[in-house]
Amino acid sequence: SEVKKIAVVAGDGIGPEVVGEALKVLKKVEELFGYQFETEHGLFGGIAIDEKGTPLPQETLDLCKNADAVLLGAVGGPKWDNNSKELRPETGLLGIRKALGLFSNIRPATVFDCLKEASTLKPEVLEGTDLIVVRELTGGIYFGEKFRREGAGGEEAVDTCVYNVQEIERIVRQAFDIAMTRSKRLASVDKANVLETSRLWREVVNRIAPEYPEVELEHVLVDNCAMQLLRRPSSFDVIVTENMFGDILSDEAAMLTGSIGMLSSASLGEGSFGLYEPVHGSAPDIAGQGISNPIATILSVALMFRLTFGYHDAAQAIEDAVKEVLDAGHRTGDIAVDKSKAIGTTAMGDLIIAAL
Amino acid sequence: SEVKKIAVVAGDGIGPEVVGEALKVLKKVEELFGYQFETEHGLFGGIAIDEKGTPLPQETLDLCKNADAVLLGAVGGPKWDNNSKELRPETGLLGIRKALGLFSNIRPATVFDCLKEASTLKPEVLEGTDLIVVRELTGGIYFGEKFRREGAGGEEAVDTCVYNVQEIERIVRQAFDIAMTRSKRLASVDKANVLETSRLWREVVNRIAPEYPEVELEHVLVDNCAMQLLRRPSSFDVIVTENMFGDILSDEAAMLTGSIGMLSSASLGEGSFGLYEPVHGSAPDIAGQGISNPIATILSVALMFRLTFGYHDAAQAIEDAVKEVLDAGHRTGDIAVDKSKAIGTTAMGDLIIAAL
Ligand SMILES: CC(C)[C@H](C(=O)O)[C@@H](O)C(=O)O
Ligand SMILES: CC(C)[C@H](C(=O)O)[C@@H](O)C(=O)O
Repeated sequence: SEVKKIAVVAGDGIGPEVVGEALKVLKKVEELFGYQFETEHGLFGGIAIDEKGTPLPQETLDLCKNADAVLLGAVGGPKWDNNSKELRPETGLLGIRKALGLFSNIRPATVFDCLKEASTLKPEVLEGTDLIVVRELTGGIYFGEKFRREGAGGEEAVDTCVYNVQEIERIVRQAFDIAMTRSKRLASVDKANVLETSRLWREVVNRIAPEYPEVELEHVLVDNCAMQLLRRPSSFDVIVTENMFGDILSDEAAMLTGSIGMLSSASLGEGSFGLYEPVHGSAPDIAGQGISNPIATILSVALMFRLTFGYHDAAQAIEDAVKEVLDAGHRTGDIAVDKSKAIGTTAMGDLIIAAL
Repeated sequence: SEVKKIAVVAGDGIGPEVVGEALKVLKKVEELFGYQFETEHGLFGGIAIDEKGTPLPQETLDLCKNADAVLLGAVGGPKWDNNSKELRPETGLLGIRKALGLFSNIRPATVFDCLKEASTLKPEVLEGTDLIVVRELTGGIYFGEKFRREGAGGEEAVDTCVYNVQEIERIVRQAFDIAMTRSKRLASVDKANVLETSRLWREVVNRIAPEYPEVELEHVLVDNCAMQLLRRPSSFDVIVTENMFGDILSDEAAMLTGSIGMLSSASLGEGSFGLYEPVHGSAPDIAGQGISNPIATILSVALMFRLTFGYHDAAQAIEDAVKEVLDAGHRTGDIAVDKSKAIGTTAMGDLIIAAL
């Protein structure tokens, strides 16, 4: 089969450690399934600021553009927190999303049965929870005009939230498509009782809905959604929402599963290209200790196989291997109930490879 | 003592029922403590749309302006959901906040020990949770310019989020003041890694912080806060944030207590004037059946006594009476484990009055 090019941007904190384990899995998949991958590394985030003076160097962007998919670790850390905007890791993250046209962020919030005890929710409430948040990623208040000005009440800051019909249509269609492959329930989240962008959002959703007569659609206000995720998480299937609401709700949804160290995400544009990364952050407090959990990043590779390459056999094998290792009771510190029995990053990676 | 004027706007759905019980409590307090209240009713929300053609009639606004405090039930319902913006109950709510200068919404998220089982969170996680969300209420994306325009990607909607230094200062000072009366911990929530308004927010918070050296301040990003509320709710004391984030986080915080039918809120401006209302909505599905829970509204009266009138003795008496009735096992349907033993709205009100 064709050689697939993967741009690897490991980033900061635990990024390089967890990506390292994912690359070992990639190698093993080559051996086992005969697929071929060409990986090339790029500097991104804090480390790129340190070495190149910008969080997203042009050569990294070119590397990503020439690849079939991107594997991202994590970016950021206290070292860069007080930098000016252009010299912050997050600016690189926003920049790469926009430059690669990744308008859709897909975050499955899956409950791993063997990890249920790790959730702060009661197990009976969590029962059957398996939802996906589809978040618009290149529009809204993240990318609208931002400025300061003088006003009557002193200095004033302004952020602008903008959405056009086309931006809403493409993400909403994608969410309906995903719902069609699952339980066919879609919750569109907005704040239509206050925001003009939300009213347009709801109009577009209602206009597209008749194209998907099998999908059961509900409109949920964002404040209500924040509540319902806690009250009835298992009643959600696919949630689609705009950038800022998606940022908040996808983190809430991830946390309620109790499996945040296990969750992967995909950022997609038009076509099959995608950027894959763990949901967790760069965890600077534990970086370099070899105790981070590589599972979310390894599962991000599985997601890449499914969504970008269509390598469903290898994806399934990875997911099964992870399950097997967890079922056998192996845990990294973040998900261990008995912390004294926790294993390290490399040990976890090796166990998964052995189970493959 | 002086006669206190209370404007009563019962609103829609279960609003009138729950307010009815709160008024009975008010009467009982007059008898028991010798305080004097003059209550006058105004039309507001859906009922005002039906009867006056606007959700916030001028005479209702005048009534509120001439009062010492306002007691609000709840507004809204499916009947008005598809109305144009000016003819929607929520527009009245936004209008009354702005017109009365109520820039601060204070929502205690208290766990009632006897209701712990009603939460979807594990009791050990909830243990010790007692937090207050202080939400900015008259600024931000709620009140900025909103419009539609034609763009390259079709019709476009725009919302503007604006904050000035003065608006941020007054709410932040209030939050610090509240923290000083409690455990002296303040979490300021923003999205400073993306939004200009959040960067200004954080600057102002940092500038004011030295005035309160005893308060332990942390800055929390909104997405992280949505997670931490689930992971470590008891670690929060006072949370202060802007309008939109506060809308979402205060609902999430309320829901995790499991006591949403019990929570009261205050909206305050400069001086002692305030508007008090239950956190729950108008619940049109159960309106008129006499089964709604009046406790949140009754506790809103207690909050009014504390924050506007300084009647701490009567406030304490109401809070104690509520606790006594709950401890005796009485429950309305929303908080009953055994629904067949649930009592109605009036019965609950009567029990609380008897316990006073
Ligand atoms: C780091 C930050 C800019 C980013 C976002 O808000 O999009 C992060 O929270 C995420 O969700 O990927
Ligand atoms: C009804 C709506 C406009 C309102 C808001 O968003 O402020 C409500 O959700 C609230 O929190 O009081």
